[in-house]
Amino acid sequence: MKSVNLGIVGLGRGFMLTLPALRSHPLVRLVGAFDLRPEALAQFAEEFGGRGHKTLESLLTDPKVEAVYIATPHGAHAEQAIAALRAGRHVLVEKPMATTVSDCARMAQAAEKAGQLLMVGPSHGFDEPVRVAADLVASGRYGPVRQVTTFNFTDFMYRPRRPEELDDQKGGGVVYSQAAHQIDVVRRIIGQPVASVRAVTGNWDKARPSAGAYTALMTFKGGAAASLTYSGYAHYDSDELVGWISELGQKKDSSRYGEARKALTALSGEKEIRAKLSRTYGVPGQVPASQPPHHEHFGFLLVSCEHADLKVLPTGIEVFSDKIRETVEVAPPALPRASVIEEFAEALSDPHRAVHDGRWGLDTMACCAALARSSEVGAEIDPHLIIQEETEKLT
Amino acid sequence: MKSVNLGIVGLGRGFMLTLPALRSHPLVRLVGAFDLRPEALAQFAEEFGGRGHKTLESLLTDPKVEAVYIATPHGAHAEQAIAALRAGRHVLVEKPMATTVSDCARMAQAAEKAGQLLMVGPSHGFDEPVRVAADLVASGRYGPVRQVTTFNFTDFMYRPRRPEELDDQKGGGVVYSQAAHQIDVVRRIIGQPVASVRAVTGNWDKARPSAGAYTALMTFKGGAAASLTYSGYAHYDSDELVGWISELGQKKDSSRYGEARKALTALSGEKEIRAKLSRTYGVPGQVPASQPPHHEHFGFLLVSCEHADLKVLPTGIEVFSDKIRETVEVAPPALPRASVIEEFAEALSDPHRAVHDGRWGLDTMACCAALARSSEVGAEIDPHLIIQEETEKLT
Ligand SMILES: NC(=O)c1ccc[n+]([C@@H]2O[C@H](COP(=O)([O-])OP(=O)(O)OC[C@H]3O[C@@H](n4cnc5c(N)ncnc54)[C@H](O)[C@@H]3O)[C@@H](O)[C@H]2O)c1
Ligand SMILES: NC(=O)c1ccc[n+]([C@@H]2O[C@H](COP(=O)([O-])OP(=O)(O)OC[C@H]3O[C@@H](n4cnc5c(N)ncnc54)[C@H](O)[C@@H]3O)[C@@H](O)[C@H]2O)c1
Repeated sequence: MKSVNLGIVGLGRGFMLTLPALRSHPLVRLVGAFDLRPEALAQFAEEFGGRGHKTLESLLTDPKVEAVYIATPHGAHAEQAIAALRAGRHVLVEKPMATTVSDCARMAQAAEKAGQLLMVGPSHGFDEPVRVAADLVASGRYGPVRQVTTFNFTDFMYRPRRPEELDDQKGGGVVYSQAAHQIDVVRRIIGQPVASVRAVTGNWDKARPSAGAYTALMTFKGGAAASLTYSGYAHYDSDELVGWISELGQKKDSSRYGEARKALTALSGEKEIRAKLSRTYGVPGQVPASQPPHHEHFGFLLVSCEHADLKVLPTGIEVFSDKIRETVEVAPPALPRASVIEEFAEALSDPHRAVHDGRWGLDTMACCAALARSSEVGAEIDPHLIIQEETEKLT
Repeated sequence: MKSVNLGIVGLGRGFMLTLPALRSHPLVRLVGAFDLRPEALAQFAEEFGGRGHKTLESLLTDPKVEAVYIATPHGAHAEQAIAALRAGRHVLVEKPMATTVSDCARMAQAAEKAGQLLMVGPSHGFDEPVRVAADLVASGRYGPVRQVTTFNFTDFMYRPRRPEELDDQKGGGVVYSQAAHQIDVVRRIIGQPVASVRAVTGNWDKARPSAGAYTALMTFKGGAAASLTYSGYAHYDSDELVGWISELGQKKDSSRYGEARKALTALSGEKEIRAKLSRTYGVPGQVPASQPPHHEHFGFLLVSCEHADLKVLPTGIEVFSDKIRETVEVAPPALPRASVIEEFAEALSDPHRAVHDGRWGLDTMACCAALARSSEVGAEIDPHLIIQEETEKLT
């Protein structure tokens, strides 16, 4: 397979998490970057020899750049992705794809019109154990899939944040940023179109006033149903249910309780923004994270087929079937997030191999929007009606 | 407090489970019984000296009987309870209260008309850790309750069953028998009236054709929401999440997988019915269960208040609050199911102290019916509309 010459848009925290794979994977070469922070561009030039661009236009006219990975704040995704697609570049855009269904629809349309690949990721829908579980389900060996039970209790709301990240109007809180992961996971495993979303969201901390929790019931057109729950309020930590392995696949110390909230209390306003910045690329004194021993995950995940329950863990899949209980091991990751680069590179040679393309991303975003709206109006929502509404407005 | 002279209606498996408390609790005395099986009546007379009655009428005219505990198959609850209430007896009736909302409404009305106490239990809503959690929530010390996440994965569908227990039309499957427990637990902890139920039920085994699983989202009038999931298909066993303590509070051997299904495969038809019978009262050779070291429970149960998550376990409550993580111990049970007898006896002196009275039971049954109907019609259901419909038909 051909490797991809990639330009980076946004050298922040998201980029940092994908960096180990971008740095080492043979299917990708970093050839340029654009960011608002000169120090990040300088370090990029030093590390990769690629050019640091001061504008997006400049990056997009660089003939070496075949594709871009957009990892800027949510609000910038749509315009940057559309500009790149129109400039004839393939696009990998961070989750959430954008902040409105209408923007996502425009992005998907732009990709189709330009004949370029648009992919949304990384998300936990790319996690290797999720792929293995989806394949096991699709194989039919355990009968039809009927029910998925998943929940994740984290400290998302108490990590250092930019102000937009706590503003519901700008895609802040957990409804877009985190539900996008959970919905990607569930959709991939169930493999059926979504029929409806009923949800209740929760905004429980006036000091961080955006939706930090939700519980949702999704139904699917093949008859399956899924229960999805999330809380980012830093109370219970559901990582205890997956062997104290963190979301990023690292070993976690179960005795450290309440650290995110404690650390945050010491900060405020400007200082919190600086703390957030300190996790971006090009900031002196950063220690790169060690290679995680396990796969990433998104909490407790139990898949019920007619003839087996599959418990999906960062180390493998526990299968509880009619007759026996067995473990399907999933080899530890050679490189975290390699699957994203591989799916992207594969899709460039064969677009049918893209799972997480623009249409997929649009559907996931419509589910997030349905989740938010369901809570607002107190009724069940069909996400496809939201897509219809929004695309009608566009044309 | 005055002790109660109790007559038993139905000396089966349900009675066996309550028997340790009935036998030893100072607030109750067994003075008579009615069952269709003469051997059960004989053993009852031998053990308690109470009279074995061959008809319900006979039991209900026995002047020693102040109250009855009805533990016959679901289908008999309504008529027997109403007869007892009309005969001026207080009634403790097993869950599910009956098999239709209309029957439950008639029972609740009969109790009010007769001025007798009607209580529905035992159910896991009486479990001591649930009571403690409900009190912690009601104290307001962790802020308003917002979200409950609960699920239970058991082998319910593969225990030996009477045919009606696998017939949806007769209240078989898990939607009434098991959802009644889960809904009782969630309602007691949240302490708000139910607003709606959206659910999907699953009927996954043609050999045992009734609903053996469901996933549901319930909303409450105070704004809380709950996610309730159940599977009785004997695959994953969620007791692993509560320290391998069984539903009845006994230590469980985690290495024994698939026993219920295996044991059942060896039986069939008549033999299964005999196996079910062997778990009833008065069958020779029965070994009484040992005193459980822990409280009963109904699976994984996590309660989210604004300022803390409470994980409710059969040993106590783990509280994950803004600042600290602590355990609220719940002393081991002196006697299993004592709380049922205590609530019943207390309510006889002060009716306001009854949590699980006829109206409560009616509401829980309406939630079960809403759960079933929601799945059937694919829409969200307000359980109070079902009660309204059914009581209008009655008058
Ligand atoms: N998939 C994941 O696990 C994951 C993890 C973290 C973040 N993300 C996603 O990555 C995106 C960025 O979030 P983050 O946490 O990295 O934020 P961040 O603030 O850490 O990084 C944003 C970066 O973009 C730069 N930037 C800001 N506006 C820009 C613009 N208009 N043009 C070019 N550069 C700009 C900033 O200087 C910074 O380097 C978000 O959409 C987020 O959801 C994904
Ligand atoms: N709360 C709990 O944990 C729990 C556990 C088990 C059963 N239950 C409930 O108890 C009730 C009985 O179920 P079970 O499993 O004990 O059934 P079972 O078949 O074991 O027992 C029923 C008993 O009632 C007798 N009986 C049947 N029809 C009768 C009638 N018309 N009049 C008098 N006696 C009659 C039978 O001879 C038998 O002794 C059900 O409603 C069930 O949901 C509750």
